[in-house]
Formats: sequence, C-alpha cells, structure tokens
Amino acid sequence: MQLLEALFDPRRVLLVGASERIGSIGKLLVKNLESFGGELVCKSGPAPLDDCGEFDLAIIATPGDHVLRITQELSHRARAIIVLSAGFGETGTQGRDAQANLVHSARPARVIGPNCFGLQDCNRRLNASISAGLPLGGGDISLVSQAGTYAMAAATHSYDARLRFGKVIALGNTSDISASELVAELRDDPETETLCFALESLPDARAFVEEVERTTPSKPVIVYKAGKTDVGARTAASHTGALAAPTTMLRHTLRQAGAVQVDSGEELFDAAQVLDVRPLPNGPRMGVVSNSGGAAVELTDALAGQGLTVPELSDSLRQRIAAELPTYASSRNPVDITPVWADYSRLYAHLVETLATSKEVDAIVVVLAHRAAEDADAIEAITQSCQMLRTTQAEVPIYAYAIGRSGVLQALHSLRDTGIPCFDAPHRVARAVAHAYQYGQARSRAGTQLPPLANRHDVQAEDKRIELADLLTRRGIAVAPSWRCSSVDEVADVDVQLPAVVKIADAEHRTDRDGVRLDIRSRVELHAAAEEMLIRAAGGDVLVQQQISGVEVVVGALRDPVLGPIVMVGLGGIWVEVFDDVQFALAPIRHDDALALIAQLRAYPLLCGARGTPAVNLDSVADVVVHLAQLCADEPNISTITLNPVMATATGAVAVDWKLTS
Amino acid sequence: MQLLEALFDPRRVLLVGASERIGSIGKLLVKNLESFGGELVCKSGPAPLDDCGEFDLAIIATPGDHVLRITQELSHRARAIIVLSAGFGETGTQGRDAQANLVHSARPARVIGPNCFGLQDCNRRLNASISAGLPLGGGDISLVSQAGTYAMAAATHSYDARLRFGKVIALGNTSDISASELVAELRDDPETETLCFALESLPDARAFVEEVERTTPSKPVIVYKAGKTDVGARTAASHTGALAAPTTMLRHTLRQAGAVQVDSGEELFDAAQVLDVRPLPNGPRMGVVSNSGGAAVELTDALAGQGLTVPELSDSLRQRIAAELPTYASSRNPVDITPVWADYSRLYAHLVETLATSKEVDAIVVVLAHRAAEDADAIEAITQSCQMLRTTQAEVPIYAYAIGRSGVLQALHSLRDTGIPCFDAPHRVARAVAHAYQYGQARSRAGTQLPPLANRHDVQAEDKRIELADLLTRRGIAVAPSWRCSSVDEVADVDVQLPAVVKIADAEHRTDRDGVRLDIRSRVELHAAAEEMLIRAAGGDVLVQQQISGVEVVVGALRDPVLGPIVMVGLGGIWVEVFDDVQFALAPIRHDDALALIAQLRAYPLLCGARGTPAVNLDSVADVVVHLAQLCADEPNISTITLNPVMATATGAVAVDWKLTS
Repeated sequence: MQLLEALFDPRRVLLVGASERIGSIGKLLVKNLESFGGELVCKSGPAPLDDCGEFDLAIIATPGDHVLRITQELSHRARAIIVLSAGFGETGTQGRDAQANLVHSARPARVIGPNCFGLQDCNRRLNASISAGLPLGGGDISLVSQAGTYAMAAATHSYDARLRFGKVIALGNTSDISASELVAELRDDPETETLCFALESLPDARAFVEEVERTTPSKPVIVYKAGKTDVGARTAASHTGALAAPTTMLRHTLRQAGAVQVDSGEELFDAAQVLDVRPLPNGPRMGVVSNSGGAAVELTDALAGQGLTVPELSDSLRQRIAAELPTYASSRNPVDITPVWADYSRLYAHLVETLATSKEVDAIVVVLAHRAAEDADAIEAITQSCQMLRTTQAEVPIYAYAIGRSGVLQALHSLRDTGIPCFDAPHRVARAVAHAYQYGQARSRAGTQLPPLANRHDVQAEDKRIELADLLTRRGIAVAPSWRCSSVDEVADVDVQLPAVVKIADAEHRTDRDGVRLDIRSRVELHAAAEEMLIRAAGGDVLVQQQISGVEVVVGALRDPVLGPIVMVGLGGIWVEVFDDVQFALAPIRHDDALALIAQLRAYPLLCGARGTPAVNLDSVADVVVHLAQLCADEPNISTITLNPVMATATGAVAVDWKLTS
Repeated sequence: MQLLEALFDPRRVLLVGASERIGSIGKLLVKNLESFGGELVCKSGPAPLDDCGEFDLAIIATPGDHVLRITQELSHRARAIIVLSAGFGETGTQGRDAQANLVHSARPARVIGPNCFGLQDCNRRLNASISAGLPLGGGDISLVSQAGTYAMAAATHSYDARLRFGKVIALGNTSDISASELVAELRDDPETETLCFALESLPDARAFVEEVERTTPSKPVIVYKAGKTDVGARTAASHTGALAAPTTMLRHTLRQAGAVQVDSGEELFDAAQVLDVRPLPNGPRMGVVSNSGGAAVELTDALAGQGLTVPELSDSLRQRIAAELPTYASSRNPVDITPVWADYSRLYAHLVETLATSKEVDAIVVVLAHRAAEDADAIEAITQSCQMLRTTQAEVPIYAYAIGRSGVLQALHSLRDTGIPCFDAPHRVARAVAHAYQYGQARSRAGTQLPPLANRHDVQAEDKRIELADLLTRRGIAVAPSWRCSSVDEVADVDVQLPAVVKIADAEHRTDRDGVRLDIRSRVELHAAAEEMLIRAAGGDVLVQQQISGVEVVVGALRDPVLGPIVMVGLGGIWVEVFDDVQFALAPIRHDDALALIAQLRAYPLLCGARGTPAVNLDSVADVVVHLAQLCADEPNISTITLNPVMATATGAVAVDWKLTS
C-alpha cells in the first residue's frame, strides 16, 4: 500500500524533461500533471537536480543517455520513479544491461518502466502518462497493462462504454515493479474492487499465480495474456515437456487460482464491466426479455454456447406473464413481447420485475432491438425497476443487449450509468455474463491456499528405471512389479505373476525396435519373449513386468523456468497426444485440488465408469498426482518426470511406465 | 430467375391493405413502395379485387382472416404474393393447416411468408417490407433471412459498416418459397456475387446443402444457422443416432459443400464484407503494419487463433523496410512503425506497397491505432496505394483494423468505401480474413458434385448379426469371420482362426452381462468361453469371431428426416463418445470425398501412423465409408447402421461389430 500511495497519491511530484516546445512530450506532460492536487516541480535540461527536496514520485522523460545519472541522483530523494524514456531492454543485450544498471542505481527508489506509458489515477485527476486526457473517473476498476495500448484503450472504453476506472498503469519493460507485486498491492487497496491485467510477458509467473490465488476470494482478477508463445523458453523435449505448452500451463494454473481469463482487450473490458457490478449471478439460469424473436434466438444460442441456460418457466409464471402480453407474443423464456412499441415502457419494467422476483432465473438479460433501443422511456422504466429491485431481497443482476445503428450508444450509456451492463452484440453479453457466473462459482470455492514449497531434499535419483521405481515407491506411488534383466538366466529367476510384459528397458528404443511383448501367459512364453527382446535390445537390458490392466492415465511433473514445479494429469495411451486432454497445476497440490483437476479432464466420464466399465478409484489417482507433485517440488534436480501410463482401476492406480530427466 | 424477376424487379405491384391511418402498417407500406420505378396499385378494405389486371408481385397486409380469400383471388393474377400478415403456422396446429391452405389456394402464384418482413431491392429502390427506409444500395450482396431481425440488421450494417446490399428478403414462416430455391435462383443472378443466409429452421436441408454445393464453385454462400436444436426431430436412439446431433450433421455437410459458416449475425455481415471484395488471399501468410506494438501483438494472436500466420520476412525485405523506419521501430512482421505521427501517410503507403509486391505475404492487415485512425491523410494514402496496386500484377488483398473512440467510424467508412474491409476489433478482422482464405481454398477444391441418389432397392435386411454380415460382405465391406452358435456343439464345429473372440450375440446385453471374452488362444479356451457366454446369454446365441487387431474406427450411416441418407466416420473404441471425434457427410459419397472426410478427424494423425504404429490403409477405410453410404442411400428401410469398431490396419479395414435398425 505504501507503493500504491507513492505512485497514485503523491504529494510532491518531480518532472524531469519538462518542455515548452509545442508538440513535445515534455510540454504534454506538464499539461497532464497540472490537474492533480499536489505540488509539481518541473525540471528541464540536463543540469544536475541540485537541492529541490524530496518527492513521492518522479517522472523522467529525458533522452535515454541521461536517465542513469538522474535515477542515481533521485535514488534517495524519490520513493518511486517512472522512466518514460525508451532505449533500454527492448533494444537488445546492451539495453538490458543498461536497464539492470538503472534499477540498481535507483535503489531504494522503485522504478516503473523504462519505455512505458506511465500511470493515471482517474479519481485523483493524476495523469502521469503520455496520453492527453484521463479516462472517466468515479470507478474502482484498476488496470495494470504492459503495453500502452490497453491504457489508451481504457480511456476509449471509459467514454464509449462508460467503464469507470480508478488506477491505470502501464509497466513498459517491467524492469522492477512487477505485475505480481501490483496484484498484492491492489488486493489491499480499498479504492480497487476489480483488477484487470493486460500482459505480454510474465517473468514472475509463479508469484503472479500465487498472488492471484490470494486475491480472488475477495476481488475478481481479470487476466489477458497476449503473445501466446512468450512465457519462457522450454528445454525439455520429453513427453511431459512437449505437452506443457507454456501458455497452457499458465492458463490452467490461473484458472485454478480463480482468475477470470480473457482472450482479447475487448473481452477484458467487457468482463470488467460485468464483474464490477454486484450481485453476481448465483446460477446459470438466464431470463430473457426481448422485443425481437430473432434476436432472442441468437442470444439464447450465445448464452447456451457459454454454458448458461434459458430455462422453461413454470406454468404459473408463464400465465402471469401471458396475462400482460399480446396474444401473439410468447410468454416462454425467452419472453418475446413482439414489436408493440407503444407499450414498451410498461412491459419491459413489468417483466423485469416479474422475472426478478420469480426465483426461477439467476439473472435477466433485456434485449432492446432497434426501436426499443431508442426508446428513452422504456430505458428509464427498466433502470427504475432495477433500482427498485436493489432495495428488495429479490435482487438478481440485470444485463442488457441493445441492437441498432450507432445511435444505440445512447442506450448503452444510460443503462451502464445506472449499473446495468449493456452490450451491442449477443456474444459479448453472453461471454461477459458467463465470466460473472463463473467467477462467482470460483469465489465460493476459493480459499484453498497452495501448500508452501517444502525444503529441498537432494535425492540421488538417476535415470535408471528400477531405481526410479524405488524412489516412486518410497514416495507412496504404486508401481507395477518389475525386474531389470540383462540375460535370459536372470529372467529365469524372476518371480513375476502372469500375465506379464517384457520390454526393452531403454524407452528410447522401444518403439523403433518393436520392443514390447504384452500378455505373456506362461513361463515358456516369457523366456522366449525375453530372448527375443534381449536381441532387440542389442546389449541393453530388458524389463520384466507384471501386466496391469485399467484405464490408462498419464501423470507428470516438471520444473518450469517461470512457473516452478508443475504437475500434470491426463488420459494416457495413444489418444492423449491427439486429443491433448491434460490439465496442469502448480506443485505441490492438495488432494482435493488434485481431484478437482482430474474432474476437469474431458475424459473424466470414462474414469467415472462410462460404457459399463467400473469407476476407477479417483482418490488413488489423486494420490499419485499429489505424491508426484511433492516429489518434483522437493527435488530441484528433477527436470521432468512422466508416469505413462498409470493404470487406474476400481481399487487403485499403478504406474506401469516411468521416465525421468534430471 | 423468373422467380427473382417477379420478386425483385416487378413492373406492376399490388398492395392489399393500404391505409391512410397515421402509424399504421398500411400507410408505411404505401410510403415504402413509392420509391420503386414500376406501377403501384393500392387496395384498402376487405372488398373483392374486381378487375385490376395482372401483377408481378402482390403484398398482403390485411388481418389474417381475409388472407385466404385474397390469395385465392390473386392465384392467377399475380406471379408472387408476399403475405406479411401473421396468425398462421407460428400459432400452432390450426394455423399450420390454414397456412397449407393458403399456399394451395395461391397456386400457381408463389408465396413469401406469411408472418414475414417482406423484401427489398436496394439497387432498384424497391421496399416491399415493413421497415422504413432501405439499406444502402450499390452492392451485390444478397441476404435471405428467416427472421426480420437480420433484414433490419442489414440496414444497420449498411450505414454503420458501409456494407452494400442488392437483394434482401425475409421468409417468415417459409410456407412455399424456400431457402434452397433461393440459393439456386441467386446463383444464376448476375446482380448477386455474395449470398448470405440467416436461418432458424431448414426443413429442406438436403436440397439446401446440394444447392450450396453447386453454388460455391462460383459464389460464396455464407450461412448462419440460429436455433441450435431445431433442424428436425430425431428418433433413432442408437449409437449413431445419439452422436448425430442435427446441428453437427448440418454443419459438417455444409462445410463439405464449401459454405462459409458463421455463428452470429455480426460474423455473417463481417464475412460478407470480406468475401465481397476480391481477390481472396491465396494463402495464410499475413503481413501486418501497425503504429502500436501492443495492438499488433493482439492481432497476431487473433490471426494465429484463426489458422493464419504472420511469417518472418526475408532479410533483404527487412532491410528495405528498416531503411524507411526510425531506428527504434521494428522491421519484423508485424512491422511496428511506432507512433511517428508526422510520417504516417508516407510510411503506411510505402509499407503497404513494399509488402504487397514482396511475394512474401498473401494479404496485408493495416492497424490504425488512435491517432492513425483519425489521420485522414494516412487513410487517403493507404487507399491510393491499394488502388494503384489493383492495376498491377502484384495485387494482394488489403484489410484494416482501426482502434479508437467511436469517431473511428469515419476511418471505417473511408476505407470500406474504397474496397478495404475495415473492422474495429482484432478478432473480427482475423475471423473475417480467415473466412476469405478458407473459402478461396474450398472454392479451388470445389466442383465435386454429389453422386445422385440411386434407385432404391428393397433388401430384406433384418436385425440378425450374421445376415447383416452377409449383406455387408455383398456390398464390399469386409467383416471379421463370424459364426452364430446356440450350443457348445455348434461351437465345436466352427473353424475359426485363433486368437478368437466369443461374445453374447445380442449386443444389448453384452455390457451388463460382461458378455465378451477376448484373446482366446486355444480350442480348449474357446469351448470354455463359449460355455460361459452361453450361460450368460440366458437362452440367446453367442458369436464366435476371429479376433482382428488394428486402429478402432467407427463407420455409420443413418437416414435423417431432413438431410436424408448420411454417412459418419470417426475414431472408435471407448474414446469416441468422450471426444466426439466424428465427421458426417451426405450419402452417397465419392471415394475422394470420403478420404477428405477421414482427414478432418482430429485423430487423423493416428491413422497416418503416429506413435510409431504403421499407417493404416486409408483407401480401405474410405471404401467402407463409400459402401456403407451407398447401402444406406439405396435402402430406405434402413434407419441406422453402425459398424463399431472397424479395425483399420496397414492392409485393410474389417468390421468387427455391426448393428442395424430398420
């Protein structure tokens, strides 16, 4: 909070790089900074700062080669420094070194930027940015962006879509103050109710996910991650590694942290609009009131496509609705009042109230098509009903979808200004409402903190199958009884239960040498198979293993450069790579969270006993996930570890094949 | 074409239900009809028509109970009749009967409606609709809608998005003139280049798909099908039937017909805008020129999400680009010129020309963020470059994405008016461009007409496994050698090759009675298994079958109430239901199209030999699809037939289990 105070509520601000030249950034900044309530000191030219006192916030807009000297001078005089100047990390290796020097030289002052847009506090009229003008204030939505684009877009959306912001900040090169730090600060900020992040890279991904997880029980965190191949380099080419696309891992872990994840700037601002209005929908049942049947059908499709429902209403409710409507109108949900424009005010208001108090829907979406979108009386009547309902116990959230020419903007503004989120396309309202519903669900489940990363052991795990099997067993993971043999004589001594499997021990060569023999049912077959596999192993060992049947599951763990230890679970066998049905979570993981992770697999119904097969023991599978996650978290020298398949049965889960990369 | 002429180019038009009353539909219609060039005769009141001559088009807007008499009177006097009046099929059984009477009474005149919006010819200023005002004319996009909503939206989009329409028609209850008939008419219409359909139901689905297939080689057909559970009732509860969701079947068959399918009205109009401009992109490589790095990143993500690419440029091209840019700008694709506003005109024009003539990209997307979107000179320079390029051999299509406050509309208009499709969100431009690219690909492949439905045989196919096996064999589908046995003695006589399978013959009881024994390797095991299965069959037969290994495929065929004979192929086994990886096509089907269908499966890589397994013989699988499709097409008494699994191997494809519902 001290950081936020220095940034957004400074008493004394220093601008270095002020100018009188028309069209210059320096002049724009002077003008921008005039509106805030504190003291502004302006410096131009490259002269030393001399004795100008201490500052909460300093803004540097000089050419890049002066910046380092200025940050040095300011290090003990300013609490925070915004470096607008470019020419640092974005230009290559040399620039990255200069940037590291800059941050170092500024200590103990904190740095925003360099190469950034700056920041704005819309409520305090603080505009420490390169944008002329502030977004509409009066709001408690805060936006942290990396690119200036989304900070600019905030202003656009505040005017076009009546989205009301509090704090807006763009981090540019993100050399010091990070996204994760700002999650933590904004969580405790009484002026922020909804957090928005638009990020391109996320070098502190694990800290970010952990802070989001701490925040979502009290405030929604909306995350737009642009630049889909940018989280960090991936080195492991193993099976787990190949599946572990960084974007996918980040997406999965953020979902488990309760974040609202979006795929575009538009969706970010749409979600913010809906999440900033309370209450949230308590369930997925949408009541729709429309003056256009066609628009209602499209909206219903869009809502269904987002996992929401437009349920049939009870007979008694339908009768009450029908009593007010023309005979050719539809009292079914979606309620189609038809184009009876003379009666719009009365009907919209009445139907909103009737549905809101019915307990048969969890939210209402009002469709205003063409003439209705231009009907100020109808819009006024809807907002009055909405305000009246807010004073009762019967409140459900109300959303709107307005169709018409660009003049429909007026309807959007009127509705949004009274707390009714309104959109101009059915997929936008459906998507935004779905975010509100899902966040409500996630929030009610939230509060499961991640277990802390344990002290690190240092086990001598080597890439030898049997030794790894021992390690797994010690960690509580059942493995199929296995014997590594280098000769037929050794195989003869193996006391394996039939049916058995013989395979080339070195997994790398198993496929190209046809190195697996399944379903061996006698000692004679076993010896013949072992002989054959030893030849194919060409000097290598074979593995004799008890054959286990079950549903094939893959469980893996890896150490990601930015997300740290990660655990993965998915359906195994040949299908997994085609359908890519895997889920990731931060490791370590609690048993309950592992169960929830497994439940998110598309193939979950198979584990629960679809197609007449018995349900597998989900707790056993979750145990494997928990134990493997803990192993990876404990052992920094493990790069990836993959159990594929783990055979899941009604009684347990047994790893049949395993592979480790240190 | 005669039908189109009567509807959209009438010389004499009759309006029944004209009125002078202010606010009435009758008065609105009189006013709407004033602008077209032919003769208008207006009748009010319920009196008989008397001797008023013959008409190309009659419009009826009287109360519903007069309509039948009027259509009778008009049947030989008008070529086409638009019935705007409501109160027919949409009200229930009685209304549907009245509607059938209406169509019958009007013969030989053709009927649009009842309960409809009417039609418009924007170029001829013909407004035979209930909407005040016409969309912008001057275009060759024709729209056929069921709901009036999309006809209204056409007007909105024509003004807001400068989309230029030719013919607009809304069919309402679609009692007579159908969507498929209009596809055929518009295909031959020299004034229509782009066909748009917004439909809720599609009772003539097969004819529609076939007409679309005939059209797409010459003109794009964009289809928005709203109301996702409405194609028709489904009765078969068999495996194939359960997977054959009507929406899915329609979607797959339309895709094979080359249709551009969209999921919303917005997407329909966006696609129309892009497809109506030529050339189409010849490939997926997009060159991006932006003044905002952040916006370029979001656009690149959106393009990639649509299967398009933003490729690296060659070194020589990058050097040429870099020579014109500031040093801190990026010459990589996406090219970021940075906010150098004084130089926008020159840079945008130069870069568009450089990229267009480079042969390294197949299309260009220009990003105009904030200040650039308001820079009339820059926009003028881009349009001039575009026009200059059209006169050269080097033409590639140019698209734009403009960001800014609602004032950005001016940029949209300027660009669109000169043939540069422009959008205000990255996902919209990406989605629309992807449609243009995919249609270009589909068109270049098109021209494969469906084989005609053959004369129908009448084979006595009964639901007996072995007899069906014979039928399949006669049709050229290999089945696993099988013997139906009712006693152990019969099993003793069976000359099956080992390993073998024994299963309860009645598939219904196989799962709940654990009625399958696999991998039988000796006659002793076979007899023991048969004995056990006969007990479990409880009086029923068992099936002894040679065990076949391979990749499990499902092939099915069914007779859909609206789409007619349909064939399905997918990955078999327990995964198919979870991942729903199946593809549908109209039956019969050509071998090449069957191969293309199989290639669309997500699991296709597995068939091609992923994971070290040998590739299966795709021609054999395609043969099964072709033969089963022909069987279903030939036999109207077959409801569904499912081969699951078909074992596909490197040498062939053999059905292992089969089921038929007559």
